Amino acid sequence: MTSGFPSSTLRVLALCGSLRAASINAALLRAVARLVPDGVDVAIHPSLGELPLFNPDLEADLPAPVRALHAAVARADALLIATPEYAHGVSATIKNALDWLVSFEPFIHKPVAVLNASPRARHADAALRETLRTMSAGLVGDASFAVPLPGAHLDEDSMARSPDVAAVAALALAALRAERARQAVAGVPVFPLP
Amino acid sequence: MTSGFPSSTLRVLALCGSLRAASINAALLRAVARLVPDGVDVAIHPSLGELPLFNPDLEADLPAPVRALHAAVARADALLIATPEYAHGVSATIKNALDWLVSFEPFIHKPVAVLNASPRARHADAALRETLRTMSAGLVGDASFAVPLPGAHLDEDSMARSPDVAAVAALALAALRAERARQAVAGVPVFPLP
Repeated sequence: MTSGFPSSTLRVLALCGSLRAASINAALLRAVARLVPDGVDVAIHPSLGELPLFNPDLEADLPAPVRALHAAVARADALLIATPEYAHGVSATIKNALDWLVSFEPFIHKPVAVLNASPRARHADAALRETLRTMSAGLVGDASFAVPLPGAHLDEDSMARSPDVAAVAALALAALRAERARQAVAGVPVFPLP
Repeated sequence: MTSGFPSSTLRVLALCGSLRAASINAALLRAVARLVPDGVDVAIHPSLGELPLFNPDLEADLPAPVRALHAAVARADALLIATPEYAHGVSATIKNALDWLVSFEPFIHKPVAVLNASPRARHADAALRETLRTMSAGLVGDASFAVPLPGAHLDEDSMARSPDVAAVAALALAALRAERARQAVAGVPVFPLP
């Protein structure tokens, strides 16, 4: 295999912008992780809530949760984000994770898909995509994927049984794989360089 | 004095969205605190960096740094915010503080002024003001106050000697006092209700 080309398994790191135990965004990511086709692995990062608030003064000696996030991003072929909107803005939790990734080279060009579990929430979604573009992520799609969620009981099992969620998961994961392949063909550098 | 009317001293709580020791936003707020006229007290909240990341599950038993922020906001007559832009978005630190204030009644109608120490940074400023409006803050002014900062050495002493910074501080504090007075005359409820 040529160095820099994708491995056969697409390793997707999922980041959830809510810390709530009953978060519909977390449930959605867990449901997507159960719906993946062969050749895709979706791992939900466990500890965005343990990250300290971003402080550039700490970059010389990174706290352990930041090192863990960096390692997980570097290992991943692509990222999948689902996050709530709070007061017409991004959640602090997802923005904090991104603030710690701004100067992290392996984030650059990383294919990223965004799932929006609250399609009427437009402000945070637009702000998140503006930040991802500014960070030179390989943002997939002009729009995020709005997810039509089943009924009022938005638990993981209901979502995993929903044909709509299955369709969105298949689309998002296929788009991430396609972006990864496009980058390989186009010679887009993947960091760290081999 | 009629209950609900402003006290003679305007107590302003300053919130800084950067945790960096050499932050120009923090230096600006310290400079403004030195430039206040009689009858105004500006106190910089010391511990936004100690807040945990917002988690609705913790609202039933609030962590001590959240209780301290709530108490400081409840005591203040007005708020003054200065915050950097990171990757075309709000800093996680200021958004996190606001996420903890979304359901906190004394924040509602609180007069708020925003200083923008990086006038070319438009995304975070617009997002911050959208969030403040959504939270029903008494946001002062249609635009934020862009601060023309003196030269390349952006330390607190230089700012405190700058006539431009003095002018912005005077304008912002006068606008906060005027909004407080306008609310009193208009009978806008100030929480907690007496």
